[in-house]
Amino acid sequence: MGGDHGPSVTVPAALSFLSQASDAELILVGQESAIRSELAKLKQERHPRITIRHATEVVAMDDPIETALRRKKDSSMRVAINLVKEGQAQACVSAGNTGALMAVSRYVLKTLSGVDRPAICTILPNQNNGPTYMLDLGANVDCEPLHLHQFALMGSALVAAVEGKPRPTVGLLNVGEEDIKGNEVVKQTAELLRADHAKGVLNFYGNVEGNDIFEGTTDIVVCDGFVGNVTLKAVEGLGRFVKSVLQAEFRSNPINMMGALIARGALNSISQRLNPSRYNGASLLGLRGLVFKSHGGADAYSYEWAIKRAYEAAKHDVLARISTTIAELMPPSSSGAAIPEVVSASELNQQKTA
Amino acid sequence: MGGDHGPSVTVPAALSFLSQASDAELILVGQESAIRSELAKLKQERHPRITIRHATEVVAMDDPIETALRRKKDSSMRVAINLVKEGQAQACVSAGNTGALMAVSRYVLKTLSGVDRPAICTILPNQNNGPTYMLDLGANVDCEPLHLHQFALMGSALVAAVEGKPRPTVGLLNVGEEDIKGNEVVKQTAELLRADHAKGVLNFYGNVEGNDIFEGTTDIVVCDGFVGNVTLKAVEGLGRFVKSVLQAEFRSNPINMMGALIARGALNSISQRLNPSRYNGASLLGLRGLVFKSHGGADAYSYEWAIKRAYEAAKHDVLARISTTIAELMPPSSSGAAIPEVVSASELNQQKTA
Repeated sequence: MGGDHGPSVTVPAALSFLSQASDAELILVGQESAIRSELAKLKQERHPRITIRHATEVVAMDDPIETALRRKKDSSMRVAINLVKEGQAQACVSAGNTGALMAVSRYVLKTLSGVDRPAICTILPNQNNGPTYMLDLGANVDCEPLHLHQFALMGSALVAAVEGKPRPTVGLLNVGEEDIKGNEVVKQTAELLRADHAKGVLNFYGNVEGNDIFEGTTDIVVCDGFVGNVTLKAVEGLGRFVKSVLQAEFRSNPINMMGALIARGALNSISQRLNPSRYNGASLLGLRGLVFKSHGGADAYSYEWAIKRAYEAAKHDVLARISTTIAELMPPSSSGAAIPEVVSASELNQQKTA
Repeated sequence: MGGDHGPSVTVPAALSFLSQASDAELILVGQESAIRSELAKLKQERHPRITIRHATEVVAMDDPIETALRRKKDSSMRVAINLVKEGQAQACVSAGNTGALMAVSRYVLKTLSGVDRPAICTILPNQNNGPTYMLDLGANVDCEPLHLHQFALMGSALVAAVEGKPRPTVGLLNVGEEDIKGNEVVKQTAELLRADHAKGVLNFYGNVEGNDIFEGTTDIVVCDGFVGNVTLKAVEGLGRFVKSVLQAEFRSNPINMMGALIARGALNSISQRLNPSRYNGASLLGLRGLVFKSHGGADAYSYEWAIKRAYEAAKHDVLARISTTIAELMPPSSSGAAIPEVVSASELNQQKTA
């Protein structure tokens, strides 16, 4: 039901995904009549691998987290996450309000043992034709070194599982490559990561800079949620700006339009390689269940990528792998057991927790 | 002498600049023989508006700040900044080591009264065809609200002077637009800026997000140097990535090459609008003198833009305007008089000051 478009995007995306993944089943959660009407439009009233699970409420994109958490207990978001908790679904995908999705996921699923704070991890394209995984993207605006340390371990376990890379490289986002650069949090985090590297449990590359994200210097880039959120939105903004300049110039006169027509193969490839839709689907890492967040404005093609990502993560048993990695590597002092299991909504509303 | 290319870039840039700005004079500071040899190559041994000022030393791009500050007292960088201090030059432009340039500038020129920390301000293109001014870009990796407040005032005075906008808009870079979003430093900064806005001394728009930089939502975007540095390098990285994809695809086969040839007008316009060279030249704001930093890797065209920016700033009396703005608006408690005049090199080496 979530996102800017609701079932008119999520239902076609679900059908297209199922046609690609023959071993997958989907439970569509939300207002049954709205879902059935979309399925009917596409002549798929009775898809053998679709189940509908009715939910009476919807978390609106502008609902306060408090509302999502305390009042709308039969929202499609809450019901879908409950299905993960009860083991009826292996992953949940939502295009809804990010803050609400994180808060409800934390409340319902709880964090993995050893994880203090879940993080949001997305992927970005790079010049090496591979994805760069980046976290946190905004779940935690103030981070201590131990949190960034956990993000590195979770990201590493995710990439090892999904990309099949046994020792993915981890970079720590900083203002320079030298060890002396950066603020205190980053410097102390680097020490923790170097210690893990020395023990052979993490492949720590060292500090990376903003440009390294797109150069593909490391498989994973770790940063706090403030820096990650601002950076992600800035590059998305630049992407839209570049796209608008390209479109305006190629349509500016008939000669340019003819050139664009002749070179449409190149333009299609460019569009394909730089298409942000292919990178849709961020993981909420560190929870006792798989939850994926699609962009709110995603179209069906883009939303399908988010479903694919959830499917891949479930297939590669990402949850167990993160859980094992964290359990093996985290010092007992920062065990999740010490963290209250119930999240305060007002805290989450401020996008940080004690 | 600075940057990756030294006089082979700075001398042609200087000559090209002088051919455009008939009222400007340049003092070329550095190793006289190297400068004369470049001038001779371009048949400009005796340009009437060029003076050469010999300096025996050069700050290398990888010199520690300590070396630039304590050992190389006759470096081209130091001598050029001294010329500004002595009033022989109205502005200094360098493509040298940023940390060294900031440290030597602070040491020689001192900060303006009321300014605790200088900031680096650059401009970026936006969808409204106007520049977005963004600061700080890396001089201060840890900032208090009072510092971000000063950055807002300095940026506002700069834009008012150079762009001729009496009330430029100021946005505070954050993870969301709502007042409740962000970390403590950002929230407290917003309060200071709202108070200035209520007094009518600053045109504070409110929080902005990463995408707003390229949407041109505000004339000025204020952030700490860590966030600014990472964001700037990330967008530069994405820019290079997009450029490499465009080049590769348009050259991938003869048909695409023909299309590109026919639409070369569009490609030239695109290249022109997105050319980072046009945005070269960052201001070191908050000093008792104008200092501009060119990208180290700048070519002559790009370096000329940095000279133009210095020229425009001098012409519009930016220094006096910032000085007046700060003096009028800053509460006396944070006056620069309380700040030690001598910068510790080890502190600056860590890119922050007490």
